[in-house]
Amino acid sequence: MADKKMILDLDTGVDDAMALAYAVGHPDVDLIGIIASYGNTITTTAAQNSLDLLHLLGADDVPVFLGESHSITTDSFTVMEISKKIHGQNAIGDVQVAKSPRPVEKQSGVDFLIEAAHQYGENLIYLPTGPLTNMAVALKKDPSIAGLIGQTTLMGGALTVPGNVTPFTEANIHQDPEAADVVFKEQKNLTMVGLDVTLRTLLTNDDTQQWRDLGTEAGKIFADIVDYYIKAYYDLDIDKRGAALHDPLAVAVALDHSYVTELPLNMKVTYDRESGDYGRTIGDPDKLLDPTYSTAAVLVDADRFVPDFQKMMLSVLK
Amino acid sequence: MADKKMILDLDTGVDDAMALAYAVGHPDVDLIGIIASYGNTITTTAAQNSLDLLHLLGADDVPVFLGESHSITTDSFTVMEISKKIHGQNAIGDVQVAKSPRPVEKQSGVDFLIEAAHQYGENLIYLPTGPLTNMAVALKKDPSIAGLIGQTTLMGGALTVPGNVTPFTEANIHQDPEAADVVFKEQKNLTMVGLDVTLRTLLTNDDTQQWRDLGTEAGKIFADIVDYYIKAYYDLDIDKRGAALHDPLAVAVALDHSYVTELPLNMKVTYDRESGDYGRTIGDPDKLLDPTYSTAAVLVDADRFVPDFQKMMLSVLK
Repeated sequence: MADKKMILDLDTGVDDAMALAYAVGHPDVDLIGIIASYGNTITTTAAQNSLDLLHLLGADDVPVFLGESHSITTDSFTVMEISKKIHGQNAIGDVQVAKSPRPVEKQSGVDFLIEAAHQYGENLIYLPTGPLTNMAVALKKDPSIAGLIGQTTLMGGALTVPGNVTPFTEANIHQDPEAADVVFKEQKNLTMVGLDVTLRTLLTNDDTQQWRDLGTEAGKIFADIVDYYIKAYYDLDIDKRGAALHDPLAVAVALDHSYVTELPLNMKVTYDRESGDYGRTIGDPDKLLDPTYSTAAVLVDADRFVPDFQKMMLSVLK
Repeated sequence: MADKKMILDLDTGVDDAMALAYAVGHPDVDLIGIIASYGNTITTTAAQNSLDLLHLLGADDVPVFLGESHSITTDSFTVMEISKKIHGQNAIGDVQVAKSPRPVEKQSGVDFLIEAAHQYGENLIYLPTGPLTNMAVALKKDPSIAGLIGQTTLMGGALTVPGNVTPFTEANIHQDPEAADVVFKEQKNLTMVGLDVTLRTLLTNDDTQQWRDLGTEAGKIFADIVDYYIKAYYDLDIDKRGAALHDPLAVAVALDHSYVTELPLNMKVTYDRESGDYGRTIGDPDKLLDPTYSTAAVLVDADRFVPDFQKMMLSVLK
């Protein structure tokens, strides 16, 4: 069994689905569980999508846990209209995927994370691709996990480029800036894989056509899901050249940091609604001379990552 | 004579004064002229300060030119109260420096820059430590200089840390974001030395005491000037540990880029007063996949730079 244990914390939309497939297919990683989050969709839908996609990929041994259903400062969550446009009403491109025979686990996602942190310690990779609520709640419940988990590599934030919700904030961080601030300030060995790099990794219909050409059910379903996403990128004028591999890049970086150039930086997340920069991931000016425990990916070798990603997808979808 | 020709474009306040001394003393550089800018003070005061400081340092061979007196979108300029607090009413710590016997040159700073760009080309280093108005005006008058000047290394901006005027904007950029946007988008071989790195290079009263201990007039005057600045940093709670070597670091980087780690990035400067991020230096999302002609310094070897700077100052002030 692979040495590295990985927990994906997914708000299972389209790029989350690709991250899931990438992690399922990667020989170096043992995917020990998926926590469902809100974000691209509601938590229960994210959980169901993950269960169904795992079933499609023959990975019914990976347990799925329910995470928090809303931010730490709110009582409920409503999916943003723009999320539905990018990911579809069901968050996986309005494609119907056969229902998994399995239910979600009874243990909460937060408790599963805490337990895994103690069990696997430095061999554990925690990889959230949505809001950082689950980790913030887990840190509050058991602060010791800050130093236990081997690495936390998250998809979210924007440091050297504008955000995608406002000029200052990226969608995942925007969902729960208070939780993100807790995680950025407390969690050790944190790597932020944000828009700085993910917007530079684009997938096209030529790539999904190769999945389709495999002639498999998984290839067809994934091509249908991702084509929806590529079309949304085109129609919404996010990028007409292709769709960003946000979440899969984070998984790839967690397993091979040489895909990116990382800037060591103590960061904070602003959450003052009055200040105008709500949800910004930025260097903490009070800690510029301090030792760093986190990095932000600022450059990416897209010419290496995108073909490697495609190779992995062709392998897992065949 | 040193191979590299340098033009300093200074709004001669305290750290500009240190940059001037550093450039005067550096054996690798031929300081061919100083352009005066508005910013820490008005342009005419900046020019007089430069003339007087050059005289103090026995560098009366360096010509001083008048640059623009206000931004490209305004008709006049008023010094900000905070600038007076940090740099003093006369911008050099309210220290009286003996008047230079020389006047400023008759040629305008903008014309001098254009002429030098054509004369020295790739051997020319242009180093603005204030607003980027002079270069923007020069680029409008003669767009060819964008590709002629060997390198433009500027002190200004904030990419991975908050600004010092608002959370988004640094003081030099804030003076004239429209001009800065022109320069960031058009000028080739541009290096931004911003708050990301300069706030990490601190000078203390122990350092200025060593200048004082030289027993020279220059040592005493510079120590008095910089002590004012260090005290302002303390009193205004900008940094109680010391005062930032903003402008000298830019000079050092221009002559030895290994002092910093640079991120290749196509940047833009926002100047929409309605958007809330007026004067922000940020990656241009439309050019993330394009070749880059500019970099931002994001890490600095302060442990090497600060002692090197001190050694140079002790040499030039003796």
